[in-house]
Amino acid sequence: MRPYLGLDFGGTKLAAGLADETGRLLAFGRCPTEPAAGAAGAIAAMRRLVAAFPPEAGRPVAVGISFGGPVDLACQRTLLSHHGPGWEDFPLVERIADLWACPVAMDNDANAAALGEVRYGAGRGRRNVLYVTVSTGIGGGVVVDGKVYRGSHGLSGEIGHTIVRPDGPLCPCGKRGCLEAVASGPSIARAYAEQAGRTDSDVTAEDVFRRAANGDVTARDVLDRAIHALGLGLANAINLLDPELVLIGGGVSRAGDALFVPLREAVDAVCAPAPAGAIPIVPAVLGDAVGVLGAVALASDSAA
Amino acid sequence: MRPYLGLDFGGTKLAAGLADETGRLLAFGRCPTEPAAGAAGAIAAMRRLVAAFPPEAGRPVAVGISFGGPVDLACQRTLLSHHGPGWEDFPLVERIADLWACPVAMDNDANAAALGEVRYGAGRGRRNVLYVTVSTGIGGGVVVDGKVYRGSHGLSGEIGHTIVRPDGPLCPCGKRGCLEAVASGPSIARAYAEQAGRTDSDVTAEDVFRRAANGDVTARDVLDRAIHALGLGLANAINLLDPELVLIGGGVSRAGDALFVPLREAVDAVCAPAPAGAIPIVPAVLGDAVGVLGAVALASDSAA
Repeated sequence: MRPYLGLDFGGTKLAAGLADETGRLLAFGRCPTEPAAGAAGAIAAMRRLVAAFPPEAGRPVAVGISFGGPVDLACQRTLLSHHGPGWEDFPLVERIADLWACPVAMDNDANAAALGEVRYGAGRGRRNVLYVTVSTGIGGGVVVDGKVYRGSHGLSGEIGHTIVRPDGPLCPCGKRGCLEAVASGPSIARAYAEQAGRTDSDVTAEDVFRRAANGDVTARDVLDRAIHALGLGLANAINLLDPELVLIGGGVSRAGDALFVPLREAVDAVCAPAPAGAIPIVPAVLGDAVGVLGAVALASDSAA
Repeated sequence: MRPYLGLDFGGTKLAAGLADETGRLLAFGRCPTEPAAGAAGAIAAMRRLVAAFPPEAGRPVAVGISFGGPVDLACQRTLLSHHGPGWEDFPLVERIADLWACPVAMDNDANAAALGEVRYGAGRGRRNVLYVTVSTGIGGGVVVDGKVYRGSHGLSGEIGHTIVRPDGPLCPCGKRGCLEAVASGPSIARAYAEQAGRTDSDVTAEDVFRRAANGDVTARDVLDRAIHALGLGLANAINLLDPELVLIGGGVSRAGDALFVPLREAVDAVCAPAPAGAIPIVPAVLGDAVGVLGAVALASDSAA
């Protein structure tokens, strides 16, 4: 059986992998993204990653693409990347199809990750799942009846831009109090730096979790507020979507219980009348491979 | 062709209608709900309404029920009514099936209304629609790919209990700042009475709209705040669901442009990065018949 190729075009890293129909990785490679190199540079880097795969891993029967930015699903073109130039209205699917001479499917990274987790990860066998990645930004993927629900313009799942604190901090999108402006990794780090009166900007969200664990009251307070806001955003989404499972991925989810225990409490406190406690909120499990495996799931769907 | 019977068990009124497969009403009747009479009294009243239909309207081939309260979709029993006793874990579908000896399907009123509007009303031909009723309460129905998305526990679409003002007024559900506690008809009336320092409690949301139109600054201010909150709740839902159309029904929607013009502005102002302006926000059209026609749509699906 020939494998599927998954390509993950992220803002900070590129990753490629070959996997079989069960999601088992046969080959995997990654490298940093060079934003200035644009689309052509990223495609060349992907070719190098795949060229380094062992020949016995096989040639792909279909390719899937997870793209870190908005995509035009109907035209299968990228609309733009927030991380660098050269991706505006770019025919990525066509270029990849030219290179590998097989069917190619693309989706944005949150949708691909949601599909990957439902097909091969923590959401296996579930029908209605909300996947949320809490990382540099906050994105979401909505799975309805086992399929990614993409909405009418491919813009569904934008939980990061739901407003949880109307008088809150300004978001790069121009609004105030978006979930992303309150609870993303950089937002947590920024809130800590501000509240602690630090001028050095090298504190990360991971540092804030570590400081809170070591008794830093400011860190504790910053996390309380961020996690409460995340809980409110999740509760609002749960009240609309009534999923059977909520999966949290992304770098911030690596904080583990320090995130998940207070997060579940926050959701329970604001998620009535739905039986919030009955809806598990659990870590995603595919980690760094989620983009590649989401892309593999897209590829396998396109070949079906 | 034998017609479908739609039964609308609402908190303030009962309505029944016979309609053909295009949603054309052949007979219609309604009466006030007597909450103290419970389920048995409501069923008897429905029998009287249907008995008064002209015989030439025909006997139903299937019955649909729109119920004004949570229902157990798997068991097709009502869970409770917020308006009166006697509905706890009640086998309404079984009782109605006994009476009319044909297939019976039931859903809660918001889901039934969403289905009715998409099948026969303002959402005809649309695939992904968010229906919101702004009335005594605020409820919602989510239509995905032409079908009502009921969620994993039949609890989807609870937009009335999404939180839009975390420090806002207390909601009967026990939380603070639910959309329903800020923008339902009674919430608008209550906010006006409080801000105007009136002790008489006979002001309605309709009165507040009329006073605002006549230059009452307090009324204007109360409506601005309620409509802004409704816009925020809709924008959050749009960012998650990316519908092609948002339909607003319920008593408050009868305010027309006085509601819809500022509401569209409020959604546009907070709904980024989605192209909010591209998503029409329009009045539902089925009015008082929406429950019956939603029930008819349920009946026609159950007979299909």
